[in-house]
Amino acid sequence: MSKKIPYRFYLTEDQMPTQWYNLRADMKEQPDPLLNPGTLEPLREEELYPIFCKELAAQEMDSKTRYFDIPEEIQEMYKIYRPSPLIRAYNLEKELGTPAKIYYKFEGNNTSGSHKLNSAIAQAYYAKKQGLTSLTTETGAGQWGTALSEACAYFGIPLTVYMVKCSFEQKPFRKAVMQTFDADVIPSPSETTQIGKKILAENPGTTGSLGCAISEAVEKATTTEGCRYVLGSVLNQVLLHQSIIGLEAKKAMELLEVYPDIVIGCAGGGSNLGGLIAPFMRDKLVDNKDIRFIAVEPASCPSLTRGKYAYDFCDTGKVTPMAKMYTLGCSFIPSANHAGGLRYHGMSPILSKLYHDGYMEAVSYEQTAVFEAAKLFARVETILPAPESSHAIKGAIEEALKCKETGEEKTILFGLTGTGYFDMTAYSAFHDGKMVDYIPTDEELEKAFEKLPKVDK
Amino acid sequence: MSKKIPYRFYLTEDQMPTQWYNLRADMKEQPDPLLNPGTLEPLREEELYPIFCKELAAQEMDSKTRYFDIPEEIQEMYKIYRPSPLIRAYNLEKELGTPAKIYYKFEGNNTSGSHKLNSAIAQAYYAKKQGLTSLTTETGAGQWGTALSEACAYFGIPLTVYMVKCSFEQKPFRKAVMQTFDADVIPSPSETTQIGKKILAENPGTTGSLGCAISEAVEKATTTEGCRYVLGSVLNQVLLHQSIIGLEAKKAMELLEVYPDIVIGCAGGGSNLGGLIAPFMRDKLVDNKDIRFIAVEPASCPSLTRGKYAYDFCDTGKVTPMAKMYTLGCSFIPSANHAGGLRYHGMSPILSKLYHDGYMEAVSYEQTAVFEAAKLFARVETILPAPESSHAIKGAIEEALKCKETGEEKTILFGLTGTGYFDMTAYSAFHDGKMVDYIPTDEELEKAFEKLPKVDK
Repeated sequence: MSKKIPYRFYLTEDQMPTQWYNLRADMKEQPDPLLNPGTLEPLREEELYPIFCKELAAQEMDSKTRYFDIPEEIQEMYKIYRPSPLIRAYNLEKELGTPAKIYYKFEGNNTSGSHKLNSAIAQAYYAKKQGLTSLTTETGAGQWGTALSEACAYFGIPLTVYMVKCSFEQKPFRKAVMQTFDADVIPSPSETTQIGKKILAENPGTTGSLGCAISEAVEKATTTEGCRYVLGSVLNQVLLHQSIIGLEAKKAMELLEVYPDIVIGCAGGGSNLGGLIAPFMRDKLVDNKDIRFIAVEPASCPSLTRGKYAYDFCDTGKVTPMAKMYTLGCSFIPSANHAGGLRYHGMSPILSKLYHDGYMEAVSYEQTAVFEAAKLFARVETILPAPESSHAIKGAIEEALKCKETGEEKTILFGLTGTGYFDMTAYSAFHDGKMVDYIPTDEELEKAFEKLPKVDK
Repeated sequence: MSKKIPYRFYLTEDQMPTQWYNLRADMKEQPDPLLNPGTLEPLREEELYPIFCKELAAQEMDSKTRYFDIPEEIQEMYKIYRPSPLIRAYNLEKELGTPAKIYYKFEGNNTSGSHKLNSAIAQAYYAKKQGLTSLTTETGAGQWGTALSEACAYFGIPLTVYMVKCSFEQKPFRKAVMQTFDADVIPSPSETTQIGKKILAENPGTTGSLGCAISEAVEKATTTEGCRYVLGSVLNQVLLHQSIIGLEAKKAMELLEVYPDIVIGCAGGGSNLGGLIAPFMRDKLVDNKDIRFIAVEPASCPSLTRGKYAYDFCDTGKVTPMAKMYTLGCSFIPSANHAGGLRYHGMSPILSKLYHDGYMEAVSYEQTAVFEAAKLFARVETILPAPESSHAIKGAIEEALKCKETGEEKTILFGLTGTGYFDMTAYSAFHDGKMVDYIPTDEELEKAFEKLPKVDK
């Protein structure tokens, strides 16, 4: 007889993971190394010190250590808002009439509204421990900026957030949340950096871009004593921290005596997906478990499904090291859409490698179809999902409907990364029938690919 | 040796309450009955049928039944977002340097963002069960409208929400959330009712009021076949449903082997406070437990601390029955402030009676002091509280600081009713130093008291 599965399942405090899991330690082939963009030689750890604090630089480069102890102080903060629940989507199953069993790991029940807090805490902690006196970052939609503001307020380290000017103006509430946590939120481009001044002089009316905000944040970090830059996705260190999601999910499923046939997550830079799948991917890599992984991305920014696997810059401003990844080219600017955090031109090198080697699948969906899934989900599961997360919902629904056709009772796990409370402009556009789908043409992509750096590796 | 208390404690699904608790059954003296405003005679249950569905009318009038079974369908929906966590505020204690042990019951982790959903579900369910075909309500700040939209979408019953026009215009995001759950949101006053048309004709530029929105919703309910009106606070039935908060809190504390010396809640209409204290108040009334209860209200709308205990109308439009309660007079309009839901002129008759009979205390705080408490709380506990809930935080902090002076290790429990994600305009005003405190003068209150109905009871 199978165990009775509750709607919501929480680990107890003493069942929570005390180590992060580093998936690279179990990968058969390693992702290609980061390159110094000047020499095109593999980057050495020390070269990262001016940007990242030492502990994080070490985590970034370490592909051998399988488990990293989570420092006591980080565990304490995790305990304030974690564990996140593993939820059985009984109502969604019923609504779809599917024999599939759908579970989701919900990361939205904290004030940052998403999983981003898991890594923000780690990055703020290590910065504080190293004696750094301030941090900088950029934010577009605002989830990462909010998460880092919370973490920095908690550990008492001042934070400057460069917020893309159009978001700064259109999302005053996001700004207000960050200010509640005492972050200094600056609309980018700004007069506080050389690069900002230059851009403003050249384009006085510009509303900014993520690339520009990154450049300002990096300049501020590298020109301010005791200051470092932090980033909320893409990096190996971020996937390491986010493994807490997958570790908790796996432990919860063990206790419930279930195991997923399919694991699904939305993919922008890859931090949530990488964190969710990590321990399950280990089962596939090490124990040959028969399990499918599906990355869901927006059709408007299809880095995995239509990008190239190539060396590229991690930022539009080309100031960062180069990474081998699926990319649309760092000059690619996705159309104005509401996919929020899923607008990055590239993809985590770890996930890119796994996808390239055939361990993971990828699909893309258009915006209105994703919001239709979001609305259905909200009605039956009572959670208003973030636009990003709704891509995973859409992916899960499609797989559940396939099960309905075949009659298979598959177990599906997906990551519900966050809530959409600050994305209501997008929902309004959807309600008012003003949402437009956009798919880049092959010509547009080719044009962006042509600008990829020429690296013979 | 005392038990180790986790940061967050969740009941398991099978530990969740299956009955609501009706505090009236254990009150030594009953609240005075509702009166028919025409005859001034005690209201009979049948007189409520045109407004409320039968089951809710029965709950409203029933002071004898101690426990009501929670219908299976409601329990199922509770399980989707409940139990809510009981959180030990270790960080707040540390920040204050108090020997007090502070716990809070956090009701904000659902899309409505507050405890309101607990009663919305019950009211939507009973309406559906009776075969009603639609519901109406009014909303000011939007929490109640959102909660009821969620509940109605879940049970498949159409809902019309009359939203005070200035909120409708200033809070487009709240409106968008309700629309996601398919509610028909109408700015009030509107052309859809006689009373709305009349008000618009007399005051073409009016931005509306809660009183007017109630009148429109009631008119719509009483003039539409199969339609009823529902209300989110004040009523006995609502306190009954909200007892789920206190029952869960008490059960959790029993399992942790702790018991509160003081229970604190914010008080607007009284639904959250009444629900939180219910089972603990029983201990005081029946078992003579030595426990203090503190209602915290805004200084701008001080119904308990400065109001009169008298018969009054429940609405500004004087279309409802009269209730004996602490009231500032139904003509009292609190100054424009950011206390959100705490702007009601009266107070739950149950709580009014308990306060009058000396079983409960009340305090009031000014707006900026409350937001200072909110900001401190957000930093150390990582939850951005609703302005309403922040009154309870302020109350708890004051009691904890008294413990610091006396060295007493009291156990404090307070209700954190919701999150402030849709209240960032208020937070911005606070950050920008534009928040103003306002306390009504004695003359203003006297003027409002003069308009109280003359009832010799």
